[in-house]
Amino acid sequence: MKVYGDSRSGNCYKIQLLLGLLGKQCEWIEIDILAGETQTEAFKARNPVGKIPLLELSDGRCLSESNAILNYLAAGSSLIPNTEFELAKMLQWQFFEQYSHEPAIAVARFINVYLGLPADRKQEYQQKQEAGHKALAVMEHQLLQTLYLVGNQMTLADISLYAYTHVAHEAGISLDGYPAIKRWLSMVADQRGYMPMQVKS
Amino acid sequence: MKVYGDSRSGNCYKIQLLLGLLGKQCEWIEIDILAGETQTEAFKARNPVGKIPLLELSDGRCLSESNAILNYLAAGSSLIPNTEFELAKMLQWQFFEQYSHEPAIAVARFINVYLGLPADRKQEYQQKQEAGHKALAVMEHQLLQTLYLVGNQMTLADISLYAYTHVAHEAGISLDGYPAIKRWLSMVADQRGYMPMQVKS
Ligand SMILES: N[C@@H](CCC(=O)N[C@@H](CS)C(=O)NCC(=O)O)C(=O)O
Ligand SMILES: N[C@@H](CCC(=O)N[C@@H](CS)C(=O)NCC(=O)O)C(=O)O
Repeated sequence: MKVYGDSRSGNCYKIQLLLGLLGKQCEWIEIDILAGETQTEAFKARNPVGKIPLLELSDGRCLSESNAILNYLAAGSSLIPNTEFELAKMLQWQFFEQYSHEPAIAVARFINVYLGLPADRKQEYQQKQEAGHKALAVMEHQLLQTLYLVGNQMTLADISLYAYTHVAHEAGISLDGYPAIKRWLSMVADQRGYMPMQVKS
Repeated sequence: MKVYGDSRSGNCYKIQLLLGLLGKQCEWIEIDILAGETQTEAFKARNPVGKIPLLELSDGRCLSESNAILNYLAAGSSLIPNTEFELAKMLQWQFFEQYSHEPAIAVARFINVYLGLPADRKQEYQQKQEAGHKALAVMEHQLLQTLYLVGNQMTLADISLYAYTHVAHEAGISLDGYPAIKRWLSMVADQRGYMPMQVKS
């Protein structure tokens, strides 16, 4: 199995973090998004959406979407709940991540860190930060009630939401108003097999 | 079980369509988004995200995110594949829907149908239409190879993507360049138990 990813991307980091926690290894093929390597013919033959992360199985079949890849790689592990309601709750948080959290925090981080906060994107940056705070408030509300997002056991939902939450400061978003999120971040980082985000120099 | 939803919303229609196909019924509580009914204290106590659809179980537990609700309600049915790779592929399409399809087509439809295409949102409208065509091209590419998105059997992925694709014209997006999508739309509409979208007058 191979993973195509960019080490600076939180969506790709989700896969590295999961592999660490599971004690599994995969061949990692570094892709440079900013150099357009997701838009080549060769890459789009593997994933017509033109995005990473992408998982390629040994028989050549490909799977995209970070959260779908997590579900595939973690199948049968304790990171996927085995009751129907908790499983659905895990998916709820993963869809929330893709719809309400990543489009806010990951985009603000991109504008800030990769584009260097250009003047003509400042308004969008502030809107994204506001939306980011809204998403964090929803997480805080849950994490004041349970240790992890779906209950008192870690699931894939925590991996999906950890990825961009733990670098929220790079999006200019302070976590000072979110004590339960801070407590949860350190619980994730304390897991056996935890891998920090590898930043390419 | 109760579903809180707005009949004009594609995300809510997904639930109605699934219930029809499964031959199941749920109490439907009509919520008017435009009147702010998702932002009341009472509603946010059920779903802190302040969005519909929302499923409430008879014991009071709540589940949000349309695609998570689909997975919960369809558990054990043939609409969820039973091999790990196909299950992950179904999720891949559902995450794609929330990340690349819905934010384009549903938003263009909203600007057009509900806001009446105001001049100051025309540029955004055009950008959303472009993004919509990109998402449709990815679907067309798949539907030229298989009858449904995950293979030759219908899954929840088809329900998730049917919801806004079949009203793409309301977003000013023509499906004329997408013959495989048109064939697929009519296959979904031919299913036993199919429910059309109910438009409130
Ligand atoms: N919904 C996708 C989002 C993936 C995504 O946006 N990937 C970015 C990097 S973080 C990318 O590949 N961008 C390159 C491009 O769009 O060309 C997922 O969760 O995997
Ligand atoms: N990711 C959510 C999106 C739900 C959503 O955006 N719902 C809209 C109606 S289509 C809504 O409730 N809007 C009201 C609001 O945001 O106040 C899902 O799939 O359920």
